[in-house]
Amino acid sequence: MNKQELINQIKIKKSFLCIGLDADIDKIPKHLLEEEDPIFEFNKKIIDATKDLCVAYKPNTAFYESLGSKGWESLEKTIDYIPKDIFTIADAKRGDIGNTSKMYANAFLNTLNFDSVTVAPYMGSDSVMPFLEFEDKWVILLALTSNKGADDFQFFNNGKEQLFEKVLKQSKNWGNDKNLMYVVGATRPEIFTEIRNIVPDSFLLVPGVGAQGGSLSEVCKYGMNKDCGLLVNSSRGIIYAGKDQNFADSARNSALEIQKEMAILLKELLG
Amino acid sequence: MNKQELINQIKIKKSFLCIGLDADIDKIPKHLLEEEDPIFEFNKKIIDATKDLCVAYKPNTAFYESLGSKGWESLEKTIDYIPKDIFTIADAKRGDIGNTSKMYANAFLNTLNFDSVTVAPYMGSDSVMPFLEFEDKWVILLALTSNKGADDFQFFNNGKEQLFEKVLKQSKNWGNDKNLMYVVGATRPEIFTEIRNIVPDSFLLVPGVGAQGGSLSEVCKYGMNKDCGLLVNSSRGIIYAGKDQNFADSARNSALEIQKEMAILLKELLG
Repeated sequence: MNKQELINQIKIKKSFLCIGLDADIDKIPKHLLEEEDPIFEFNKKIIDATKDLCVAYKPNTAFYESLGSKGWESLEKTIDYIPKDIFTIADAKRGDIGNTSKMYANAFLNTLNFDSVTVAPYMGSDSVMPFLEFEDKWVILLALTSNKGADDFQFFNNGKEQLFEKVLKQSKNWGNDKNLMYVVGATRPEIFTEIRNIVPDSFLLVPGVGAQGGSLSEVCKYGMNKDCGLLVNSSRGIIYAGKDQNFADSARNSALEIQKEMAILLKELLG
Repeated sequence: MNKQELINQIKIKKSFLCIGLDADIDKIPKHLLEEEDPIFEFNKKIIDATKDLCVAYKPNTAFYESLGSKGWESLEKTIDYIPKDIFTIADAKRGDIGNTSKMYANAFLNTLNFDSVTVAPYMGSDSVMPFLEFEDKWVILLALTSNKGADDFQFFNNGKEQLFEKVLKQSKNWGNDKNLMYVVGATRPEIFTEIRNIVPDSFLLVPGVGAQGGSLSEVCKYGMNKDCGLLVNSSRGIIYAGKDQNFADSARNSALEIQKEMAILLKELLG
């Protein structure tokens, strides 16, 4: 999916919601365990119940890998099931030397056919660039994450800039706002101003609203740009909103609540 | 496998060789493509031919993931086939927020039952610590990698220390030399002195000898400690040494050449 198509979807749906498909076999409703592929059944029902409310789905690969090759099959079925007008994110946080990153890029952007994949920047240029060679596909590079451990290295400062700022600046030599987005956690909304100075036109994938404590309106106040420029993710708050037979209805209600708030926040932009 | 068992294996085999099982469907001998699982058949023959010469095997997960769930099955069969007295490394370079890293840790150290997994440090403490909670299992944390892109961020300097040094120092609060190793590329052997000042007793996993240009004797000169403290990896130089029916013999010859050099370099240590 290219940038204009993504913007169009945001306008049509009045939503910049991304739903994290972090299906955990220990947390999904018990009645699904009787199904042949409980993880896929869970995702299918979540997708059916929310696909008109979100513009992106983001399965986190960890949850599938923890089930071995069977989990990888559930991931394959899930990505095939997601409607083609919805942006897909493999939240994989990969990154390795050039020839290996090429294999990961092939795994996610070709074999599995995701629109995008999250990539960790620590290994630098040749670990990221092989992911940028696919038409209308995207790298979503970790910049400032939403977790506590982000403090350990991402604010490391050489007196002129912090590490996450250096990552943003350096990566502009590798890609552009049509093939490169950034992960910026919602837990530090004031830093979005600083980030928008460096990457004014780029889309930002924003985790940390909800369970991790970030505020949607604060994120929009400092982070929204003329194209919206945000994909705000919610995982646990939506997919585990209910635990019984009606879990998909509960997920829809949670997603609808966020989408309604987003429609208001998008008002100015949509004119 | 615990630290003493690993040291014992190094002494018994007079080797600190790690073989990277980066089986690429486009590079393995053509006659294997007739097998039901060519990747596993390739690995099996490489393992049979080299298991007395190395102390560790390191499959890089990218190569398996690029084949989807079928590749993941080949990985499962490969790890099951490796003899139990050989140290196993999932070269996965994972790392995510705490609850997600926990899933990855479970995938590699429990479900697949690897002895260790490589982890990227960018997301900090809570992205690494869930991997440290398994008895006699290891995290191998990226410190200074062997690729060109390492220059982009790993030498970022605050005037007192460089990022890779900060990673080494900070991580000593999370684990110790009995559950934490580091990736240090062979391409900058002089930096091993600096690294040994910070982590004198830790094992280092050293890629970059061979195809990437690093020198084994230089690495040992600056990086070896009283327990050896090194696992030197070779992937392409061994597994693709031959391309025909005799590929496993060629792989053995390449591995044997390195092992003989290692036996000499270990002489002083072994007494």
